[in-house]
Amino acid sequence: MSLDRLIEKINETQNPTVAGLDPKLDFIPEYIKTNAFKEHGNTLEAAAQAILEFNKGLIDALHDIVPAVKPQCAYYEMYGYQGVKALYETMEYAKQKGMFVITDGKRNDIGTTMEAYAIGHLGEVQVNGENIAPFLGDALTVNGYLGTDGIAPLIKTCQKYDKGIFVLVKTSNPSSGELQDKLIEGKPVYHHMGEMCENWGKELTGEYGYSSVGAVVGATYPAQLQELRRQMPHTFFLVPGYGAQGGGSKDVSYAFDENGLGGIVNSSRGIMCAYQAEKCDEKDFADAARREALRMKKDIMQHIGEIKL
Amino acid sequence: MSLDRLIEKINETQNPTVAGLDPKLDFIPEYIKTNAFKEHGNTLEAAAQAILEFNKGLIDALHDIVPAVKPQCAYYEMYGYQGVKALYETMEYAKQKGMFVITDGKRNDIGTTMEAYAIGHLGEVQVNGENIAPFLGDALTVNGYLGTDGIAPLIKTCQKYDKGIFVLVKTSNPSSGELQDKLIEGKPVYHHMGEMCENWGKELTGEYGYSSVGAVVGATYPAQLQELRRQMPHTFFLVPGYGAQGGGSKDVSYAFDENGLGGIVNSSRGIMCAYQAEKCDEKDFADAARREALRMKKDIMQHIGEIKL
Repeated sequence: MSLDRLIEKINETQNPTVAGLDPKLDFIPEYIKTNAFKEHGNTLEAAAQAILEFNKGLIDALHDIVPAVKPQCAYYEMYGYQGVKALYETMEYAKQKGMFVITDGKRNDIGTTMEAYAIGHLGEVQVNGENIAPFLGDALTVNGYLGTDGIAPLIKTCQKYDKGIFVLVKTSNPSSGELQDKLIEGKPVYHHMGEMCENWGKELTGEYGYSSVGAVVGATYPAQLQELRRQMPHTFFLVPGYGAQGGGSKDVSYAFDENGLGGIVNSSRGIMCAYQAEKCDEKDFADAARREALRMKKDIMQHIGEIKL
Repeated sequence: MSLDRLIEKINETQNPTVAGLDPKLDFIPEYIKTNAFKEHGNTLEAAAQAILEFNKGLIDALHDIVPAVKPQCAYYEMYGYQGVKALYETMEYAKQKGMFVITDGKRNDIGTTMEAYAIGHLGEVQVNGENIAPFLGDALTVNGYLGTDGIAPLIKTCQKYDKGIFVLVKTSNPSSGELQDKLIEGKPVYHHMGEMCENWGKELTGEYGYSSVGAVVGATYPAQLQELRRQMPHTFFLVPGYGAQGGGSKDVSYAFDENGLGGIVNSSRGIMCAYQAEKCDEKDFADAARREALRMKKDIMQHIGEIKL
């Protein structure tokens, strides 16, 4: 089961964190952009080249201490198909360096269409008898608003290709409660979504007690995180909202079980833009990212102690 | 307001339908694929070339009788960034031919990330002072599970660039009711989502009484479609589920108001694969698509009579 591969990498690095790769041009050092604009003009090709170089630098600096990266599709689509090519090449590079890749796409659709997303992001497509992996994610974030038949094709793909998904349960944003906190039969919507995740993952439980169907639960709602950890004992959590969005290390600690398993905490801007926060030389961006990743690891591990398989 | 542009095109063609462009390789005539494989081998480039040629043929055959196309992102992402390039080129071609383009991406995320999607799909990105449209959609389908702050950046983009969105309210798939039909304070989830749409669109009402914030409501649930039409008088409906999924013309007729406005009905496979259903020469695929589009128009218009602005 795919999330077992993630869990093993977390154990190996003793670091339950993931580096979000959301490469807006504003986040990228000037010297990288200047080179790219010189070569390709003020074009999407230039943007894509800058993104890829930035990401490679980050991956080089992080791959031995951080188990996973999470590229956010929106920041690649923002630079057109050229950006999407940079997404693919980023994944390729991260995989070469041994990292687990979580594609943050929050995809959702009806069954037949979800099958296309599943193949595209986690599986292989047949082109005249040739099997080709269109993208290289190990896991994909998805939205469960459409119910079971929108998730079923993903489950099949997870089984066939040893991959995972993370379903939005309780998101980290301020207005997440508008729908997610509303009560249905006395229980909030996120609780019902959590139940569905446990059900969807039933046949996919791995060696460490967690299934291939994970959940997204935000660090900015620690009480709900704690409640959902109890309610969803077989569901691994992807936890956004640490740092810039306001979640602290005590908040995220509720994602973990007594063995230090059960969750992975994301930081995007905190790590990517560490060189801006540090106000160090921008050419030092990768080392600054590494310093921040190590600081974050320590910050979170103080509450967990040790990760044990 | 962008959906006014759609409404005017619907009026002009007297045809409230949209052709879904979901170009799986299985749907594409052999001679197109054979050429592409000859040129590019069994690669994603070949798949992308076949997709583009197929789409161009469909657009050529439909652009004077059908107001809009709806490419489904999943079927392009399934062929990698090469497929996503074909998505861009399909949009470019459809725009040249005067069609309204609805990007079916069902995107969703927290505010800052949704801003990137909004820019990517509906707006313009700045690259070293140059403003570039990364994709060319006139409207984007989105998922409202994250609440208002996940929608707000889209509203701004709709205002700035004269674009629209369609929010998932009641989807056409069999298990859509698992969450969407559950009751919150005595009303189903889709009803609450519908209320949010009406609120989000408040400041964006156009000349014909409909706002830039549309809703996706499936033809396969005609009773709910009727109910939502009454409940959401300022929200334009994108209606999937006609044909292959089981929705009939009587079912979709509930989307429309007394002037024949208020909705646009999608057909993907029905139009794209008309040549397969007709069992005609595959080189006649575009004419077969046109015949089916005209049949569908007649089928729906019999319930509407006339569209009046």
